[in-house]
This record gives sequence, C-alpha cells and structure tokens, in this order.
Amino acid sequence: MTETTTQMNPNAAAAIMARRRRLLGPNVATFYDEPVHIVKGDGVWLWDADGRKYLDCYNNVPHVGHCNPRVVEAIARQSAVLNTHTRYLHEGILDYLERLTATFDASLSTALLTCTGSEANDVALRMAEAVTGQRGVIATDNTYHGNTTAVSQLAAGNTSGLGSADFVRFVPAPDSYRPQGDEDGGGGMAQTARFFADAVAERIAELKASEFGFSALILCPFFLNEGFPDLPEGWLKPTADVVRKAGGLIIVDEVQPGFGRIGSHMWGHQRQGIVPDIITLGKPMANGYPMGGVVTAPDTMAAFRTAYRYFNTFGGNPVACAAAMAVLDELADRRLMAQAREVGAHARERLAALAQKYEVIGDTRGAGMIFGAELVLDRGSKAPAGAFADRIANEMRRRGIMLNTLGRSGNTLKIRPPMIFTKENADLLFEVLDDVLAATPVVDD
Amino acid sequence: MTETTTQMNPNAAAAIMARRRRLLGPNVATFYDEPVHIVKGDGVWLWDADGRKYLDCYNNVPHVGHCNPRVVEAIARQSAVLNTHTRYLHEGILDYLERLTATFDASLSTALLTCTGSEANDVALRMAEAVTGQRGVIATDNTYHGNTTAVSQLAAGNTSGLGSADFVRFVPAPDSYRPQGDEDGGGGMAQTARFFADAVAERIAELKASEFGFSALILCPFFLNEGFPDLPEGWLKPTADVVRKAGGLIIVDEVQPGFGRIGSHMWGHQRQGIVPDIITLGKPMANGYPMGGVVTAPDTMAAFRTAYRYFNTFGGNPVACAAAMAVLDELADRRLMAQAREVGAHARERLAALAQKYEVIGDTRGAGMIFGAELVLDRGSKAPAGAFADRIANEMRRRGIMLNTLGRSGNTLKIRPPMIFTKENADLLFEVLDDVLAATPVVDD
Repeated sequence: MTETTTQMNPNAAAAIMARRRRLLGPNVATFYDEPVHIVKGDGVWLWDADGRKYLDCYNNVPHVGHCNPRVVEAIARQSAVLNTHTRYLHEGILDYLERLTATFDASLSTALLTCTGSEANDVALRMAEAVTGQRGVIATDNTYHGNTTAVSQLAAGNTSGLGSADFVRFVPAPDSYRPQGDEDGGGGMAQTARFFADAVAERIAELKASEFGFSALILCPFFLNEGFPDLPEGWLKPTADVVRKAGGLIIVDEVQPGFGRIGSHMWGHQRQGIVPDIITLGKPMANGYPMGGVVTAPDTMAAFRTAYRYFNTFGGNPVACAAAMAVLDELADRRLMAQAREVGAHARERLAALAQKYEVIGDTRGAGMIFGAELVLDRGSKAPAGAFADRIANEMRRRGIMLNTLGRSGNTLKIRPPMIFTKENADLLFEVLDDVLAATPVVDD
Repeated sequence: MTETTTQMNPNAAAAIMARRRRLLGPNVATFYDEPVHIVKGDGVWLWDADGRKYLDCYNNVPHVGHCNPRVVEAIARQSAVLNTHTRYLHEGILDYLERLTATFDASLSTALLTCTGSEANDVALRMAEAVTGQRGVIATDNTYHGNTTAVSQLAAGNTSGLGSADFVRFVPAPDSYRPQGDEDGGGGMAQTARFFADAVAERIAELKASEFGFSALILCPFFLNEGFPDLPEGWLKPTADVVRKAGGLIIVDEVQPGFGRIGSHMWGHQRQGIVPDIITLGKPMANGYPMGGVVTAPDTMAAFRTAYRYFNTFGGNPVACAAAMAVLDELADRRLMAQAREVGAHARERLAALAQKYEVIGDTRGAGMIFGAELVLDRGSKAPAGAFADRIANEMRRRGIMLNTLGRSGNTLKIRPPMIFTKENADLLFEVLDDVLAATPVVDD
C-alpha cells in the first residue's frame, strides 16, 4: 500500500485520537477517514507532523492565507500594546467599521462586533425581532448558520431542546442542476426564482397564522452549504419582494461568500441585486482571530440596542480590529478579488475539461474562489454519487490535496481555497484530481 | 476645575463619541461619566491618549496583566506557525486540556472549548438538557451569564424575545450584610444557607409543575455580580443536596472567580465544598484572546455530543490554547494565587481601616483579588448609597484609579484587579480612596 507512506505515523495518530476521546469526549468530528495531524501553515500550504505538505483548497478562515505575515504582525503588534473592551473609547474599532461599512450599500452604516459568526446570527435574529415584533424565521432546508441554542435551530434536523425549533420554517434550497418548478425545462432560472419566492410566501403565511408571526428570512446569498447553485444575477429579487411585502426582514449570512470570495462582488448579496436589512459576518473576517459581526441600518441597530441590553466582552477589541483591518489591506493591496475572479475562471475551465473526460461529473459551477463539481452515478438520472465523492476527497487528501464535499447529498466537491490561490495551485489540484478520477471506480456504496 | 487637566481633550472625546454613535448606534455603554480613551496597557497600568496613567483595579480579562509578555509571545509565535480548527489533530488543545482538567475534581475530565463565556453557558444549558431531558433552569435574581438569546434570559428583567424566558426561575441572591431568613440574627450563615436552599427547592417544585421540568441550577459560586457576599466555606452544600435530590444538575459559572482569583482555591466552587456537574469558563482564560470553555464529566459530555451536533470553528484553535497555556504558566511560575491571597488580605485590612474612619462604609468583604466595600447612607438602616458609590468611582477615575460598582443597588465598590496587583498598588488605591471619601459629601440623589 503506497498510501501508508503518505500519512502520519499511524501509532502517533492513534495516540492523539485516544487523547481526544478522553479529553474532548465522543462524536467530535475530524476530517477524512485518516485524520490529519497538521502542525504548520503558510499561505495555501499546510504541513503534517511527518513533514508532508498539503495544498489547502477548502479552508476559508485563512482568507488571505495561513499565517499571513501582515495579519500576524498586526496581531502581535496590537497584542503588545493594548487589548481591552469597547467600554473604553478606542479608534481601532471605529477606523475598521468606517472601512468595512463603506463596502456596503450606504444605508447599511452601523455594525456590532462579536467573536463568532454564530454570535452574529444570534444577534441578527433578535434585531429582526426588535424591528418586527415577530419571531418566526425562514431558512433553507440544507443550511447551517451556527451553533448557539437559537441559531442551531436554523439547521433542519437539529434537536430542538432549549431553543424550541417551532419558530423556524424551511424552504427547499435552490438547485440549478435539478431546477425546481421548471420540470419541463422551459422556464429557465426565472421560473426557479419564482418557485423559491412562492415557497417563501407559503412559509410566511404559515408563520403569520402561528403564534410566532413572520420576522425574517435568513440565507447565505450564494447558498454555499446547499451546493452553490448557479443562479443568474438578481435571482433573489422576487423573493426579496415577497419578504418586504409581508413586513419581514432579509438577513444575509455572508460568512462564506463575503469578503470578495465570489470575485465579481465584495458580498454575495450584491450579486443577487438585493439590499438586505441585516448582514452577518464571521470566519474569514480576521483570518482566524475569533471575530464576527452584524452590519445593518441605523434604525435597525437602534431598535436592537433599545430592546436588548447587549455587551460582548471580547467583541471589537483592538487586536481583532487590527487583524480585520490587515485582511482588508491585503485584499485591496494585492487585488485579491480580481485574483479570485481570474483564478476562478481558470479553475472552472479546467473543471469543464474534466467534465468532458469523466461521465461522473454531472455539473460544474462556482464563482471566484468557490468552485466544484457535482458527481453523479448517471447523467440521465442525475443520481448523486455521494459515497464516490467522499472517496475522491479522501484519496485527494492522501495525494496531498485538501478539499471536501457538500450539498444535500454530499456529492459536490467543495473547492473554496484561500484568496491567494494561484492558477499554478489550481493546475496542481486538477492534475491530481484527473489522476484520482481516472483511478477510482465509480460505484456508489 | 482641576478635573479638566486630568482628562483627555474634550473635543477629541466628543469626536470619538460622535463616531461611535454613527458607527455603533445608540445605547452602546461606556464606563464613567467622562469616557476614557485608552491607548496602551502594561501590567496593572493603562494609559489614555493624553499620556495619563491609570491603575487598573477592576479588569479581570487581563488576568496576568495587560499585554503580559509571555501571553503576547505565545500568541505571536503560534499565530505565525499555525491557526486552524479542531477537525485536524493538534496537540495544543490536548496539552492544554490535560493541564486544565487536572485542576478540577478527578470526575471532571473532559472539556469543550468556545470563543466566549456566553457560548460556554449556552452549551452548558444544552448539556444539562441532554442529561436530564428537562429544560427548566434556576438562577439568582441579580446575575448575568452572557449575551446569547438563550443565556441572556438568565438575567432577570431581560427582554424575553426569541428565547422565551419561561424556562428560567429566579431565587433571591444571597446577601451576607442583610442575611435573608435570619432576621433575628440568631441563625448565622447556616440559616441563610438553608434559606437559599429552600428558595431553590420552591423554584424546583414550580418548574416540575410546569411544561419545562427541572434541568439545572446555574450560579457564580462566589456570587460576584450579586455583590460577593461573605459566605462561609461549604455554604452551598444544602443547596447542592436539594438540586441533586431533585435530579437536577449544578452548573457553576467560573468566569469571574476562577483561575485562582479568590486566592484560597483555584475555583470558586472548591471553596463552597461542592463538586458541580458542569463548569463554565471565559474572560480571564486566555488573558483577552477570545476563549471560553465548558468542563464536565465524560458521561455528561457524551450525552451532549450525542444529542447535539456541535462545532465551533475558532474554539480551541492552536493560538487560543497557546495563550491559555501561557496564562496557566504565569499563574504557576509567579505563584499568583498566593499573591492574590496575600495582597487580598492586605487590601481587606486597609478597607477595614477605612471603615473605621468613614461611616458610609457599611461592610467590607472579599477574598483574594476580589474585594470591596458596601456603601450605605446609614449603618442602622443599611440604606444603599448607590449614587454616592457612582460618584466615588467617577472621582477615582479622575484621580487615575479605575474601579467600578456592582451589587443589587450598585452601591458596592468592585475592586477586581489583575492577579499581578501588588501591596504597593493596593496602598496607592487606598490612599486615593481615602482622599476621595474625605472630599465627597455623602448625599444620595
């Protein structure tokens, strides 16, 4: 078995897994059949304890690269000068928010900073409640917005427990490969946009008839977890009209598509041609320093700040703001949004070429630094090849390429690299993917 | 007015406050009547933008001192090597948790790491729900356990909103200066312990008769926000018996008393002579790097991990664990728990001497690096001097000493300095306090 030469010492891995079980408890997820023991990161590269190098094609937290020197320097410098809370005056948070809010529609000019995207979405739900006086929320049936008691309910199938899931209603996630509401194929994506808006309207009616009323629709504007369907610009407009007409708010979770990842726009919702009421931010915001945020209009912020006492001890501290500012500096100075556009276009071309060669690739899609292929057992039936996709991800990891799977059936390759990913990186990725696809039999077990 | 010479340029402050209102919205709290513009920290000292130096007597996040060099070095070093999530194997989190859990009862051997104490308490409630199958929680009527939708309900008087406050019942916070259940003064603190346990028993009965059932009692084992009443060791034992007999869990929030602050024990609950089921950690854990955690027994962790999917992207990352390990190193190598004990004893002596001199000091109390005085308008009636206490805190700030107030009536001076606070620091604090008490008329308006 050649694989054993490319993985860490199995005894060392077993010992670490045993310590994890003892100290962290059961059911703590690791990536891959053979978990990776990563000890070092630099740019798009990760190294394991045996010195083996991996090309990171899916981590979005290190947005401007693992251990980005500018971000590391900002964290080290500010940590040595001052790190305290926002009950004192400090210009770090103000300078950062001025720069951040300038990237949004002019109406969205205030922000609240947290430590995680989960905390941000938890606040966003309360903001919508403060504005509307209602509590009912709509989400898609294949999404995830975080881990607090309240927002974990936004993931279909999660245990309800303390949060009482009743306030959430789910709509079918859009799917450009199997367009809903357009079974005859004649309506195109306009028809699917109408289908989605109609589904939202039905859930609104249900919520209005319930004790919860209708407060907000929350969604990732690029539907990342749903498999990032290929939607034309402005696709969400009919849905936005339905929500507004019903007196509800639109919350967009920009944790994944934001900060330029999609290449064409700084934010996913801008591609959709809508101005949301509330925007939530997380993972890539400070390149790994724990930070999240909520951006909204002054009236909405005032409604929240009046209805709820809220203070976040670590949120918006000077170190977080210095790190987040360094991320914006890197994005601007190194033109990383343009790089995302160019490298993404190149990657989709390479993907399309692979699709010519391999029947198993049913669809390729993406924008900027989020791209991937939907794997199917049969192009006619479009039956998802979930187990096969999982084998591909594991085999890629053995070959030194880190990617993952997502989507309703876990059959879409998720390629979501740091924004500094180059065409050369993409070429390496697709050369190995070509080899792995050629060597892996398509059986779905 | 001599005060104006000791504060920042008022125009600069006004400009920053205007930017805050524009970018953060209304009702964002600042400390003091004249907010302070802090730009630098070092040890127990803070500096404002005009170069004025302040002795920090109440911030507990910088547990081992502002910009502690060992912590800063750990953050800078690890940030430059690797910062990623726990879905890869990494020894940083395991080494830290081995060291951390060794400070607890042997039964409490597993942990889950988050980014904030709020997230930790949010998880703790779900852990108790997973074990008991019930949702009802009891808290004191003058506490605070965090800012998520679920845990913000644990603060009496908070808007319910999305979380539905119905699952929480409140018991009167203990008060050693005005002992409840011991109005005749004969029963001593044993009588107040019984009173508290009886109040908990009543709330348990109420919850058991409700749709929620009884899941857990959550409390700060040193009752910091409640005014840190002077309770004898083992005071919580009767309450613990009541909770256990009812099949509930005890959650102790060690965010404030933990990590050696009380001087006599590493954790507040150890002084109370009880072994809790779940312990939550936050603020001082990594000296300001956003980090929180939950420590519990393997069975409880397994129940949670089985009932709930939970993943925290930034929680337990290598940088957080390096910072937290440096905090434990500092505590051990510099014998800071012993320092807390010795400096705290000295401070309480100085406080007692001030109480001889000033009628307004009705009671002095504390343990280790948490101490303070309850200010009253009259020692006979014990009427709280809340407005006076507020004036004292503001006048101290003008004199370069940062402390604050807390308690049910905001009339207790909160002195909760970093663990590196010295007797000389305490002497400076009390010299200025002596001057300020002498110069401030006792009128409660």
